[in-house]
Amino acid sequence: MRLHRLKRLFVGSPLPTAQARHERLSKVTGLAVFASDALSSVAYATEETLLVLILAGSAALSYSLPIGIAIAVLIAIVVSSYRQTIRAYPRGGGAYIVTKDNLGVFPGLVAAAALLIDYVLTVAVSVAAGVAAVTSALPALFPSRVWLCVAAVVAIGSANLRGIRESGKLFAAPTYLFIGSLLGLIGYGAIGAIFDLIPEAPYQPHPPGLEGIGLFLLLRAFSSGCTALTGVEAVSDGVPAFKPPEAHNARVVLGWLGAILITLFLGITFLAYDLGITPQEHETVVSQLARRIVGSGAFYYEIQAVTMLILLLAANTSFADFPRLSFFLARDRFFPRQFGTQGDRLVFSNGIVILGSLAALLLVTFQGDTHALIPLYAVGVFISFTLSQASMVRRWLRRKEEGWWWRACINGVGALVTGVVMLTIAVTKFSHGAWIVVLLIPTLVVAFLTVRRHYQEVAEQLSLEGYEPPPITNSVLVLVGDLHRGVVRAIQYAQSLSPSAKAVYVEIDPERTHRLEERWGKWGLGVPLIVLTSPYRSLLGPLLEYIDALQEKGGENHVVTIVLPEFLPARWWQQLLHNQTALLIKGQLLFRKNVVVTDVPYHLKH
Amino acid sequence: MRLHRLKRLFVGSPLPTAQARHERLSKVTGLAVFASDALSSVAYATEETLLVLILAGSAALSYSLPIGIAIAVLIAIVVSSYRQTIRAYPRGGGAYIVTKDNLGVFPGLVAAAALLIDYVLTVAVSVAAGVAAVTSALPALFPSRVWLCVAAVVAIGSANLRGIRESGKLFAAPTYLFIGSLLGLIGYGAIGAIFDLIPEAPYQPHPPGLEGIGLFLLLRAFSSGCTALTGVEAVSDGVPAFKPPEAHNARVVLGWLGAILITLFLGITFLAYDLGITPQEHETVVSQLARRIVGSGAFYYEIQAVTMLILLLAANTSFADFPRLSFFLARDRFFPRQFGTQGDRLVFSNGIVILGSLAALLLVTFQGDTHALIPLYAVGVFISFTLSQASMVRRWLRRKEEGWWWRACINGVGALVTGVVMLTIAVTKFSHGAWIVVLLIPTLVVAFLTVRRHYQEVAEQLSLEGYEPPPITNSVLVLVGDLHRGVVRAIQYAQSLSPSAKAVYVEIDPERTHRLEERWGKWGLGVPLIVLTSPYRSLLGPLLEYIDALQEKGGENHVVTIVLPEFLPARWWQQLLHNQTALLIKGQLLFRKNVVVTDVPYHLKH
Repeated sequence: MRLHRLKRLFVGSPLPTAQARHERLSKVTGLAVFASDALSSVAYATEETLLVLILAGSAALSYSLPIGIAIAVLIAIVVSSYRQTIRAYPRGGGAYIVTKDNLGVFPGLVAAAALLIDYVLTVAVSVAAGVAAVTSALPALFPSRVWLCVAAVVAIGSANLRGIRESGKLFAAPTYLFIGSLLGLIGYGAIGAIFDLIPEAPYQPHPPGLEGIGLFLLLRAFSSGCTALTGVEAVSDGVPAFKPPEAHNARVVLGWLGAILITLFLGITFLAYDLGITPQEHETVVSQLARRIVGSGAFYYEIQAVTMLILLLAANTSFADFPRLSFFLARDRFFPRQFGTQGDRLVFSNGIVILGSLAALLLVTFQGDTHALIPLYAVGVFISFTLSQASMVRRWLRRKEEGWWWRACINGVGALVTGVVMLTIAVTKFSHGAWIVVLLIPTLVVAFLTVRRHYQEVAEQLSLEGYEPPPITNSVLVLVGDLHRGVVRAIQYAQSLSPSAKAVYVEIDPERTHRLEERWGKWGLGVPLIVLTSPYRSLLGPLLEYIDALQEKGGENHVVTIVLPEFLPARWWQQLLHNQTALLIKGQLLFRKNVVVTDVPYHLKH
Repeated sequence: MRLHRLKRLFVGSPLPTAQARHERLSKVTGLAVFASDALSSVAYATEETLLVLILAGSAALSYSLPIGIAIAVLIAIVVSSYRQTIRAYPRGGGAYIVTKDNLGVFPGLVAAAALLIDYVLTVAVSVAAGVAAVTSALPALFPSRVWLCVAAVVAIGSANLRGIRESGKLFAAPTYLFIGSLLGLIGYGAIGAIFDLIPEAPYQPHPPGLEGIGLFLLLRAFSSGCTALTGVEAVSDGVPAFKPPEAHNARVVLGWLGAILITLFLGITFLAYDLGITPQEHETVVSQLARRIVGSGAFYYEIQAVTMLILLLAANTSFADFPRLSFFLARDRFFPRQFGTQGDRLVFSNGIVILGSLAALLLVTFQGDTHALIPLYAVGVFISFTLSQASMVRRWLRRKEEGWWWRACINGVGALVTGVVMLTIAVTKFSHGAWIVVLLIPTLVVAFLTVRRHYQEVAEQLSLEGYEPPPITNSVLVLVGDLHRGVVRAIQYAQSLSPSAKAVYVEIDPERTHRLEERWGKWGLGVPLIVLTSPYRSLLGPLLEYIDALQEKGGENHVVTIVLPEFLPARWWQQLLHNQTALLIKGQLLFRKNVVVTDVPYHLKH
């Protein structure tokens, strides 16, 4: 009861099913809702590239420019590719559904596993980066960052358990503030650079070719920067949320999103180059950039604040995506069915709780450090990109709809490029943490298949097809250890179930049996008393033997009902003061076939 | 089932009640059985005195001689006093029983609380000192001492859970070996000292009076040495275990015990003085003494081994005493009744498990350090001494049996002296840990009284005196969520309980209701189906309302039986894959009056 009240406090009162309604998004609010995940990654993508490059010395930092351009091209390819997906799946084309549809169940499950992992990491990475934005501005909070991260996850999780229905309005302000502020910062920085208003200190030009860095490190830097692409797929997952014409609006929004993402990412990468910014442990690259361009005034703090907000919104999107994918998996019986039901606030509570717990665990394990989490991050994303685009190729080839030839080309290029990037990430970051994901995905797929097989077997065993229910018989026994009001009530109850109910007493001390038998005449209410002897003072042994004998006599459809008198004290600690016999008996009888245990509680007043 | 096998492995097969028999002890075996607790304390009592004295500098060490003599006198007084108790209580005179008999329930409970604490500390202190004897001989084991302590407690506890029935034989060898070895060591040391075979280096003589030490520290040193008296009361607790004439034999044994104890304690104290031995962190005083007198040969190792053995035996006696006192307290309803029943190996398993756990906890908390535990130890012992002797005085004054006058005098002196010592210990060691015990005793007494009151209230509420059982009526409802073999079986079962059984379905999705109603005609077996609507998708809300309505109609003696179809998967993890609805419903209905919940399990095969 007290737990119940606690839940209401955090989660709110239940909502009736009739309140479920679908808010339709305009292009402007749609961009706000779906952009946060993708755009927020510019807060860390440039920094992650620089962090790898600096391993080869500061002379290698200027490789960030060609890498940035390569990633911008990649963004353009992936966005074009997903615009095809939106056309083909106007009802929403998440990687799991698209892959299962076109490539089959097994690749679909691989995509699902990759996505589930990815959603957990989106929460962890975004929250860690959001807290880094805060601690860059307020270095005094740096030592408490792990707690801040966990607090943020708890806050976002609780908000989602309540159900966030005002999502459009909620998302619009921070997203557009973030876009506006960063565009302003980049524009101001560019003007400053052109008119020499800000002291420039560009990185040294990198030596020709791969001198002094090596291909592997360069690819690792590229892999790290590819986190800029995370979240690009969100629009195509959520097509039905747009106002009609849904597919058209979604495609327009995805186009805008790609353009803004490329602008912000390239702008930050270029300015970091031009101002010679190097990654620092206690301050993010974006924070350094802002300080250098606009100084440590109000605008600086505004930039840090909206960066934090958009990162928390990005984390928040996973709290919608993870439970939704879990729901699809549960509907297809690959996931425990608890994930297939909505809670009393119309949200999928189990998915939210699991996601929050896993993300919090990751944040504590990795000490809230974005850089440590990044190597785990992008593998899953690119696996789902590749599978999703490859599915589209298969689809065009099969359906041969209008323009199938060049559409298949676009998706084919997308699949090829993301596949190569996925392998690059897996190889270059394998030893830095990607191995965890590479091992986890097949493990999850095996788990999905095991769960599915179990549900199928249960359904077969419970199927009513061709079932002829055998008639059952029933004998009722009251287990008596003493004589008091609770026992008398249980005897009455047993009589109400069956006129031939019997009472059973296990004798441990013959003297007590004698006293019980004397009082039985008055209080036994005519129910016959059967006394079982127990040489080992065990209550259960003789009882089990007696039940066995009854069942042997009654045949395989004879049910034995054991009525247990139990008194319930008014306070929980008082329960400890009584023999836990009832619990013990229930535990032992639970797994016996054709035995039903019925507690008859007698409620004490104090 | 697996747990069950594990229990059998550790605990052994159950023993029939008929095997309970009482081994009667001769004087020789009786001394062995009851002496270990008292005699083993000489392994640390001298050392604890020296450890306090050395705080005032090495010049204060020689105060150990007058303190040793005072403690020897105290032993003589307490032994004489307890010999009177044996005469008066030939059926066993533990402090709880003697005090409750003569001074009343409340002082009896104080004695019981003191004793329970004392038994836990006996285990902890004896095991810590036993392990110290081992690590003195084998210093490499010193860093592992906490684990060795815990392992020893687990070993002794498991042995007691099996039941140690060969106790006389088991105890005789180590006890007599210990007495013989220490007498040998002391004798050899005394001869060596007299004939100048061993280099003597006595402590400096202490300055006159209390110069340089102060009364408080001197009394604290005395208090620490008083641990030598722990266990002296054991003989009087166990009088009925002796061969007849029980009281006579017990009195003789207690006399011997006192003489041996005084000899060993004074011998060790004197030799430590004469050889100038100072306490060391990694080696006990007895070990240093033995090394100096007999060198590090076989005899030295034998002394350390028997010292360890007798200390483990002393710990072992608490494993008989604690459960026995718990049994007496449970019989008088001051303690949970689980402590009043014997396990299937004829031992009081609950008491053994609790004692072992508490002692292990203490050993881990205090890092297996005897010196840290000592300040908690002796307070409880002396409280029980004082109360027990005071009870005897009251008894003699009341009964005025033959010789009552001088017997009352002996016990009076005993009570007075032990009372003064008790206060001395409590005051001088208060801040070193005795405060824990001083706070714990009243807490335990309050707990005893609370438990007793609860049992009395339960007995009153359950009493059949003047009880007229009101006739009860019963309606049976099967809760249906689906239709499968398990549900059909539950419907059959409900029909076997009541011909007017009904089925209840909580509607969350009207479409599913429709499908269910279509199939109900074939599989409902004629049981009417009641559909409850649920606007909040909650299963419980509508069900509870329906039950409320039924109970309102049926009156206060109308019982509602909820039959829950439940299928039981073959493996535990599969349970996680199903909605825990049954568990939830049971939890919510458990505390409702006049509601009985009956699971009908359907066992799945794989």
